[in-house]
Amino acid sequence: MKTSYSSKSRYKRRILTTINKADGSDQLSRGFDIFIMALIVLNVFAVITETVQSIQVRYERVFYYFEIFTVIVFSIEYVIRLWTCTLIEKYRHPVWGRLKYMFSIEAIIDLLAILPFYLPLFFNMDARVLRVLRLFRLMRVFKLGRYFVAFQLIVTVMKKRKEELLITFTLLVVMLILASSLMYYIEHEAQPDIFTSIPATMWWGIATLTTVGYGDVYPVTPLGKLLGSVIAILGIGVFALPTGIIASSFERELSEREKNRKTTRQHEGK
Amino acid sequence: MKTSYSSKSRYKRRILTTINKADGSDQLSRGFDIFIMALIVLNVFAVITETVQSIQVRYERVFYYFEIFTVIVFSIEYVIRLWTCTLIEKYRHPVWGRLKYMFSIEAIIDLLAILPFYLPLFFNMDARVLRVLRLFRLMRVFKLGRYFVAFQLIVTVMKKRKEELLITFTLLVVMLILASSLMYYIEHEAQPDIFTSIPATMWWGIATLTTVGYGDVYPVTPLGKLLGSVIAILGIGVFALPTGIIASSFERELSEREKNRKTTRQHEGK
Amino acid sequence: MKTSYSSKSRYKRRILTTINKADGSDQLSRGFDIFIMALIVLNVFAVITETVQSIQVRYERVFYYFEIFTVIVFSIEYVIRLWTCTLIEKYRHPVWGRLKYMFSIEAIIDLLAILPFYLPLFFNMDARVLRVLRLFRLMRVFKLGRYFVAFQLIVTVMKKRKEELLITFTLLVVMLILASSLMYYIEHEAQPDIFTSIPATMWWGIATLTTVGYGDVYPVTPLGKLLGSVIAILGIGVFALPTGIIASSFERELSEREKNRKTTRQHEGK
Amino acid sequence: MKTSYSSKSRYKRRILTTINKADGSDQLSRGFDIFIMALIVLNVFAVITETVQSIQVRYERVFYYFEIFTVIVFSIEYVIRLWTCTLIEKYRHPVWGRLKYMFSIEAIIDLLAILPFYLPLFFNMDARVLRVLRLFRLMRVFKLGRYFVAFQLIVTVMKKRKEELLITFTLLVVMLILASSLMYYIEHEAQPDIFTSIPATMWWGIATLTTVGYGDVYPVTPLGKLLGSVIAILGIGVFALPTGIIASSFERELSEREKNRKTTRQHEGK
Repeated sequence: MKTSYSSKSRYKRRILTTINKADGSDQLSRGFDIFIMALIVLNVFAVITETVQSIQVRYERVFYYFEIFTVIVFSIEYVIRLWTCTLIEKYRHPVWGRLKYMFSIEAIIDLLAILPFYLPLFFNMDARVLRVLRLFRLMRVFKLGRYFVAFQLIVTVMKKRKEELLITFTLLVVMLILASSLMYYIEHEAQPDIFTSIPATMWWGIATLTTVGYGDVYPVTPLGKLLGSVIAILGIGVFALPTGIIASSFERELSEREKNRKTTRQHEGK
Repeated sequence: MKTSYSSKSRYKRRILTTINKADGSDQLSRGFDIFIMALIVLNVFAVITETVQSIQVRYERVFYYFEIFTVIVFSIEYVIRLWTCTLIEKYRHPVWGRLKYMFSIEAIIDLLAILPFYLPLFFNMDARVLRVLRLFRLMRVFKLGRYFVAFQLIVTVMKKRKEELLITFTLLVVMLILASSLMYYIEHEAQPDIFTSIPATMWWGIATLTTVGYGDVYPVTPLGKLLGSVIAILGIGVFALPTGIIASSFERELSEREKNRKTTRQHEGK
Repeated sequence: MKTSYSSKSRYKRRILTTINKADGSDQLSRGFDIFIMALIVLNVFAVITETVQSIQVRYERVFYYFEIFTVIVFSIEYVIRLWTCTLIEKYRHPVWGRLKYMFSIEAIIDLLAILPFYLPLFFNMDARVLRVLRLFRLMRVFKLGRYFVAFQLIVTVMKKRKEELLITFTLLVVMLILASSLMYYIEHEAQPDIFTSIPATMWWGIATLTTVGYGDVYPVTPLGKLLGSVIAILGIGVFALPTGIIASSFERELSEREKNRKTTRQHEGK
Repeated sequence: MKTSYSSKSRYKRRILTTINKADGSDQLSRGFDIFIMALIVLNVFAVITETVQSIQVRYERVFYYFEIFTVIVFSIEYVIRLWTCTLIEKYRHPVWGRLKYMFSIEAIIDLLAILPFYLPLFFNMDARVLRVLRLFRLMRVFKLGRYFVAFQLIVTVMKKRKEELLITFTLLVVMLILASSLMYYIEHEAQPDIFTSIPATMWWGIATLTTVGYGDVYPVTPLGKLLGSVIAILGIGVFALPTGIIASSFERELSEREKNRKTTRQHEGK
């Protein structure tokens, strides 16, 4: 597939390979990857620590300039990606290809990572909306998905086991509804302020069936305790199903990949 | 198996295939399935939200008319099923076949789904019984069993692993009795109001062995804490047994089904 | 192995097969098994319900006569077993064989099931010791071990996996000690009344590592919370090891037995 | 590999085999192993019980002399190991070999086990540092690693599954960050004193996702409860991944070792 590019095209391709995940020994590309990943991790760290009052007051300016720096870098990255995407086969068309790229999950995540900064500059927003927008900065963590195989793996596993997960999820919801409804009818009279309605009782249901058991809600009547015991024993099995399915699929996926890698290595005579 | 039916019989058969789960491309049957499933889901949603005081007051009439609509639809469905069941081989006899059908699990669930509405019309009932009857409306969720393979799957798994589940359940009960009895004898003196009797102590036993741990009951004496620690470590293993058995059986069942499906598809040359 | 017995010996053998677990179609032996099992279950039920004040006051005489009846039956059973045990090869000697039988686990359990009744008749005992003796009546539940395969199964599994369980138990203890010691050094100053010493902190360790989490003890300092988080994530894995090992061994044992049974059946041409 | 040693060298070798883990029927070496192991276990027991005020006051002198005895024994052991290590191929050089040995994990653990005693003799230390030094005495438990295969096993398993553990750990951290951040934005207004910042909310995140659920922190708003429910269901699966991976690897490792042992035994014609 050797093609001859104009010097501009060659320049463009060099940029594309640089900003994409480094494949082998491309030092510049690797450096760029590490720079972006470090920036993402630092951003997540900033969003988290910023909520600590004492730190926020002290380093307000640092956080501010860091945010601006981040947005500039991520904006440039976004523009470059949009410019170079035409080199990829399926986004080849200069207009429709770019539009198609803009609606890929990858590009949407990239956009959501910078949009919360630009929006308040153009629109009037009240404090509430601004707070939600700040939260959206956490979307930046998903930009890591490009570099980490872990995220792609979990998506693969979930796609493969879609049907099983759907089945167990249905069971789980039915179990939760039945358990909470029964408990509501039994405990409502004894604790009308806590077991106010079936949706409210579901909070107890979740805490019990996941075995978290905060202890803010629990039955007090003998019948309620009896039911709670039966539900705990029966229901935990149902709630453990998706966990078991994901865990075993995940492991099988990983061991298959390892096997493939070994086979490939043997073929390469290594 | 081509048979010639009278026009009435053909009409009846058309109705049977329509109300049964759609097999392939039968649009009418599919539509009917979706309608019934939607009605069931909405009913469950109604039973749940109805218990929220504010919603109940506001939409009382909506809930009332929806209930009447549901009962009418489910009653017609029940009657049609009873009428057409004679087309199924094992319920062929017009009287005994229908009686036999009426006592199938499927038909009993269908009946329990509508009975709570009719009973108060014919019998005098006090408020307490009425409340329990309202609860029975939740039985409607089991009507979904006809459409979802998940419910049938869990029944299959439990039948196949009946013996293992019985064994582990015996162990679990013995473990619970021993743990609770010991804890009662140790903690009764220190907390006579909480560890009042062995049955009462079993509430602690369940909360500990399932690892829910609400925190309403726990030992306070050093000896009680020591015993509680030993029981927690030993007992959790026993309580995890049925969970593990169900989870692994469930998965094996699902992967076997998938294999069968693949084999069938290959035979069909696809 | 056909031997001719004197009429006394034949009579004795008939009694032995009757009191032992029924093997096939021996109706008398089966009846005896069910009678003893029912008596054991009722006894456990009695020991449990007796601790409920209201029931105890009301049915005191019933509990008393039931206890006497139980002890008489179990005593006769014990004497018969001791008398007939000489028919079993390894207990053949009339004196040493019987003594050897008396020290078998089975016979010790049988003795402990009746001893708590006789001891106070011969010795002066204060209330405290008497209460502990009452607890010993629960030992009767282990008499079920003769009839249920479940108990034998768990013993088999534990013997087979002795080494693995020992290893994981060592890890578990080391993990508990390190976690509790670290937490003690960190939290002792902030909560001197709760984290009083390392052994006291172990109660927190157990509640956390088994994920029971009653909520009576938890770190409050930031450093303590950080350590608690790390320990929870690391330690739960270690504490899940024995559970996983027992669960998977148990399942493998059960499926092997099933396979053997199938093979046997095929050999019998069934 | 028969070599002739000078009498000194033979003497030295005898000491080395004695202090190393006994291989077969070497009674002296076995005795030494048991002595050191008992000393380690007693030390850990001492460190733990010493923190109980009443015991510490009563047996202060016993603890003191036991500590001195321990340090003397462990110091002699350390010196002997350093002296004899030159007999091991890779530490053969009298100076560099010994230096290399000093920086092996084994030797560092041995040093850390005695250093906390010597340091305060040579340096002036305030109470705070002294307390941390006392904690370091717990490092002695790791000296057991030489004798127990369990510790080596867990290290092996973790090395083999390094990649999987890294992946799941990444997922776990991302899950924790997202869950805690969302919960912080939702609950901060309703409970500003408890959900003070995202790092503080992470304490809730850990307690929920590990299902410990102490009950000191939990959402109270309907939206917070809804999110908490979704997170509990989704997140527990992710947090169960490393546990599942370690458990299954651990088991596979153990069964492989057993198989190898059996094969070896067969080769030896046993």
